[in-house]
Amino acid sequence: MNDTFLRACRNEVTEYTPVWFMRQAGRSLPGYRALRKKYDVLTLTQTPELAAQVSLEPIERLGVDAAILFADIMLLPIAMGMDVKIVDSVGPVIDDPINVPTDIDALRPFEPQSVDFLQQTIRLLRQDLKVPLIGFSGAPFTLASYMIEGKPTRQWLKTKRFMYEQPEAWHRLMKLLAEASVLYLHQQVVAGAQALQLFDSWVGCLAASDYREFVLPHMTYIFDELRKENVPLIHFGTDTSGLLQEFASVNADVIGIDWRADMARARAIVPADKAVQGNLDPMLLLGNEALLYRRVDALLQSMPEKKGYIFNFGHGVQPETDDTRLKALVEYVHDN
Amino acid sequence: MNDTFLRACRNEVTEYTPVWFMRQAGRSLPGYRALRKKYDVLTLTQTPELAAQVSLEPIERLGVDAAILFADIMLLPIAMGMDVKIVDSVGPVIDDPINVPTDIDALRPFEPQSVDFLQQTIRLLRQDLKVPLIGFSGAPFTLASYMIEGKPTRQWLKTKRFMYEQPEAWHRLMKLLAEASVLYLHQQVVAGAQALQLFDSWVGCLAASDYREFVLPHMTYIFDELRKENVPLIHFGTDTSGLLQEFASVNADVIGIDWRADMARARAIVPADKAVQGNLDPMLLLGNEALLYRRVDALLQSMPEKKGYIFNFGHGVQPETDDTRLKALVEYVHDN
Repeated sequence: MNDTFLRACRNEVTEYTPVWFMRQAGRSLPGYRALRKKYDVLTLTQTPELAAQVSLEPIERLGVDAAILFADIMLLPIAMGMDVKIVDSVGPVIDDPINVPTDIDALRPFEPQSVDFLQQTIRLLRQDLKVPLIGFSGAPFTLASYMIEGKPTRQWLKTKRFMYEQPEAWHRLMKLLAEASVLYLHQQVVAGAQALQLFDSWVGCLAASDYREFVLPHMTYIFDELRKENVPLIHFGTDTSGLLQEFASVNADVIGIDWRADMARARAIVPADKAVQGNLDPMLLLGNEALLYRRVDALLQSMPEKKGYIFNFGHGVQPETDDTRLKALVEYVHDN
Repeated sequence: MNDTFLRACRNEVTEYTPVWFMRQAGRSLPGYRALRKKYDVLTLTQTPELAAQVSLEPIERLGVDAAILFADIMLLPIAMGMDVKIVDSVGPVIDDPINVPTDIDALRPFEPQSVDFLQQTIRLLRQDLKVPLIGFSGAPFTLASYMIEGKPTRQWLKTKRFMYEQPEAWHRLMKLLAEASVLYLHQQVVAGAQALQLFDSWVGCLAASDYREFVLPHMTYIFDELRKENVPLIHFGTDTSGLLQEFASVNADVIGIDWRADMARARAIVPADKAVQGNLDPMLLLGNEALLYRRVDALLQSMPEKKGYIFNFGHGVQPETDDTRLKALVEYVHDN
């Protein structure tokens, strides 16, 4: 097996820089787009043969050094009883979101067998994969935000209001989600996931002080628990430059860096015993080729030792991205 | 005149911490809300008596230490020939945005007399005000984004694509906007504005490397030109934690800090000869009182010297905010 990615996660020096892309499974690839004409996103995630096929496509087509399970962060809230629809060009929509603390009581405890299909997908994938498989979960803040807002937002007004006005209920919800995600990720490791990533996609809307008080204790709990799984742990969030000290303080092996950050500065903030992953702006793949490679070169030069560094975007691949450019980028990073 | 705000802008020690709030004029106040039932936003900004009334309301009602001209950042693109509508609960909408480089040729050079109404508003205000009056403009990146996207966005896909694919056209547009904003702000000072703020509300979507290449040269030009006006200059942007070094490198007197940032860390990044302004999350005003004042105390304690510090939010006042809470907050900051 190609274990370059796993060695970089463990902060080791690697012969070349390993690469994978957030959202590499799905979104921009032709095989996935063809499947999406027949099936909706949730059906794809819940059908092991199809989910495995989607997860494998970027390995075969792009030559990346790690696979990521094709799933959706809303599978966990769905398993806890939330009625979630994934609406095209909108995102997750919940008609009956959490409005008051008693709504939390209506959540079901997470039962691992409710996502048996994920375990089956992972087992299928492990039969074929020659690169490590990453399992993942949304982090509690991001999940709670979706569950409270009911739809994507630019302001997180309902979420912050709930958090500020009902701190006890907030912490109760975060604890429930933290415990559920530990169990959810444990099941993925049992089935064969070889690394785990927590996606806190929305946490960057918070002030550092709010992060410390309302989020960090739950992330600390999660990473301390996941240590027992004995696989590399990745903590990724977007828009985390203002709270990177706190974000990078959890017991993770790898810190995923948002595209806005200057990688050299971020590297200096992340503790030296942790690896880093990131952080090209995925929008660069839609623009001028010379500029793209100028930025790639600068990023690679900021990590001259090839030690504990995983090349990735600072956010998910854009759906409009040309996969031949992604493939060329993987080759370039491997060769430089 | 109460010049506490101006002295803080000049990085001096003040007897108490001066306060004003971004978006204090308009949005949440009852007088403004009553006017909005009769007039649309652009009509209010273009009618000097009404705009002056809106600008004065927070001074009388809240007791803040500075007034800001009631205007809209889209007045400058409008003056340059863009057809802009301000749509309720959406924001600025442009049906015919900039799509290709030749669309830039269709822009009219900015002519100061096209915004004579702003000068009249400023003159009216200066007759009544006992606190300094801040003039402002949107910064070129934020204006260009609106002009290219045609509506508020969460991704800035069109903007980045234009910038990455057409760098020459991009710089031409930025230069046009930079020159226009210098002229636009000069007219405000001539009429009586006593400080100037550049709002780069959207620039935080950029990687630090992109900021350095595509934005910073134009901001450097603007601040170097505005130095001649001999009034304090404030540079504000949201989501700037990843590029604060560059953002704070321009020839401004005051750097406005986004709410996500930890103020003590931001203060350490901003050069010591510059003042700072910010950075409470305005959403805190919608939540629990004890938490709000815990955060206010922490912010004030991070600036123990009361030197070169202006209390503000890290973003505009939320429309839902109760003005009696704003008034109490102003008094509290003055007393502590």
